[in-house]
Amino acid sequence: MNSDFINLETILSIFSTDFEKKLMSFLPKTLFFSNKLNKAMQYVVKVGGKRLRPLILNEISSILGVKKENSDRVAVGIEFIHCYSLVHDDLPAMDDDDLRRGHPTCHVKFDEATAILVGDAFQSLAFEIISHKKTHNNSEVRCNLITELAKSSGAEGMVGGQMLDLEAERKTLSLEKIFELQRLKTGELFRFSCIAPCLLAEKYDELEIFENFSSKLGLAFQIKDDLLDVEGNIIDVGKKTGKDHKQGKETLVSLLGIENAKKKSQDLIEESIQIIEPFGEKAQNLIDLANFIISRNK
Amino acid sequence: MNSDFINLETILSIFSTDFEKKLMSFLPKTLFFSNKLNKAMQYVVKVGGKRLRPLILNEISSILGVKKENSDRVAVGIEFIHCYSLVHDDLPAMDDDDLRRGHPTCHVKFDEATAILVGDAFQSLAFEIISHKKTHNNSEVRCNLITELAKSSGAEGMVGGQMLDLEAERKTLSLEKIFELQRLKTGELFRFSCIAPCLLAEKYDELEIFENFSSKLGLAFQIKDDLLDVEGNIIDVGKKTGKDHKQGKETLVSLLGIENAKKKSQDLIEESIQIIEPFGEKAQNLIDLANFIISRNK
Repeated sequence: MNSDFINLETILSIFSTDFEKKLMSFLPKTLFFSNKLNKAMQYVVKVGGKRLRPLILNEISSILGVKKENSDRVAVGIEFIHCYSLVHDDLPAMDDDDLRRGHPTCHVKFDEATAILVGDAFQSLAFEIISHKKTHNNSEVRCNLITELAKSSGAEGMVGGQMLDLEAERKTLSLEKIFELQRLKTGELFRFSCIAPCLLAEKYDELEIFENFSSKLGLAFQIKDDLLDVEGNIIDVGKKTGKDHKQGKETLVSLLGIENAKKKSQDLIEESIQIIEPFGEKAQNLIDLANFIISRNK
Repeated sequence: MNSDFINLETILSIFSTDFEKKLMSFLPKTLFFSNKLNKAMQYVVKVGGKRLRPLILNEISSILGVKKENSDRVAVGIEFIHCYSLVHDDLPAMDDDDLRRGHPTCHVKFDEATAILVGDAFQSLAFEIISHKKTHNNSEVRCNLITELAKSSGAEGMVGGQMLDLEAERKTLSLEKIFELQRLKTGELFRFSCIAPCLLAEKYDELEIFENFSSKLGLAFQIKDDLLDVEGNIIDVGKKTGKDHKQGKETLVSLLGIENAKKKSQDLIEESIQIIEPFGEKAQNLIDLANFIISRNK
């Protein structure tokens, strides 16, 4: 393990602990005779995660000179959207997962109705936080962030991708179609994490650069996820593995083959790094993070 | 049936036909290899509804002089939030309803996974539409609308109310607690419909008046809903009736008794009308609408 990587592990760990406190501070209070919704939302946050999207958002924000108090709120918003999508995806009617990050999923720990409501509540909360003036002095910027986040997460973004993914179980798909499906399902939220800092900094000339960066990073992330499903073990990954194969589902890995998939994800990460190298030293954490995306074992 | 009522029936019917076209125009396009999500969202819109919230919003907007092109977009937003809540509430893990407005519910017509995603997509779409500059020139106004809609529909609003309602099945509740539960579950979206026009008109002095109006109207609406569950028949109401009683669930009607509940809702509507009478002739449609809320049979 080289020193860059040790450095990144430290960054990830410090960020994650600090960021969890921020996430918790935005959760709703106990309702007047029930704390179940509140407890379930806390549980989902506490079960944790890599917090990759917020970390990417914060690193690009720091490159572009965005104030931390502003980028932090948008980072909380995107993570809550991510939380909602995981809770709903894990439901029996969807991916039917009992385990997430080594812990019972929300509907197993609580019940299905609670998990549906938890997801719904996380989604509203994300938009509520971003709409608040503490997120940015300029309300035009806040509106742009909301438009982009809603598009990225909605029917023509993440939710559409999830629908296609469910449909894909009964179809033979070309590599091109799987790329498109994954662009919607996971790529769109990565795109938002990468362009939100440009909106916050009101640096619209940088939008294309970071959009380009995100499309390579998102796809590399997805290939690595599919590789972990094939090669990872349940203890490291923290959820059932081998699921895609069992469901006869075509993935980027099943179509490319393991070796080509590894090479493809490596190439994509190298290309993504080339895009941000011009930002020099300020981009070092982001470069480490890009490398981490394909070297991780969970 | 008096002439005011015939007039209102015509207004409701014209509004509803015209408004459905508007709702349809905002739905997402077919995705690149599946039209299932799109079809399911169209289905939910086509199954229809009374469109009460958008109509109230538009009537108050007209009293306050808001441009129709602005109020229409917020009305679409609130109706999409209402659509999402119905689709999720009907799910087997929640209220488990097969029938809504005389048609199979979304998860029966399609499947559960699709219904979950349809609800999620309607929610994002609502915020996307309101965030767009066509909703209002002033982005501060758009942000205020989003903050209020997110609060009204989230964990400390509608979703919280739904959670309490599920919890209530196992509890004995006082009348006061049921009032509070219903204020969250249905009252909050009524509140948004009534205050959104003040935000659009930037007439902040009127906020309290219409907030007060909404709290009486919302509660009267809920008592009428509970009465329809007891006294209505499945053909008129378009969904299973007698459910609350069957589930041993306490409602405003079971606690007040049928006659007192009728009187309470009548009193509330009269009080709500007194609040808006000072607006004179411009408020006539809204007054008819308030009367309709307790005279309806579905």
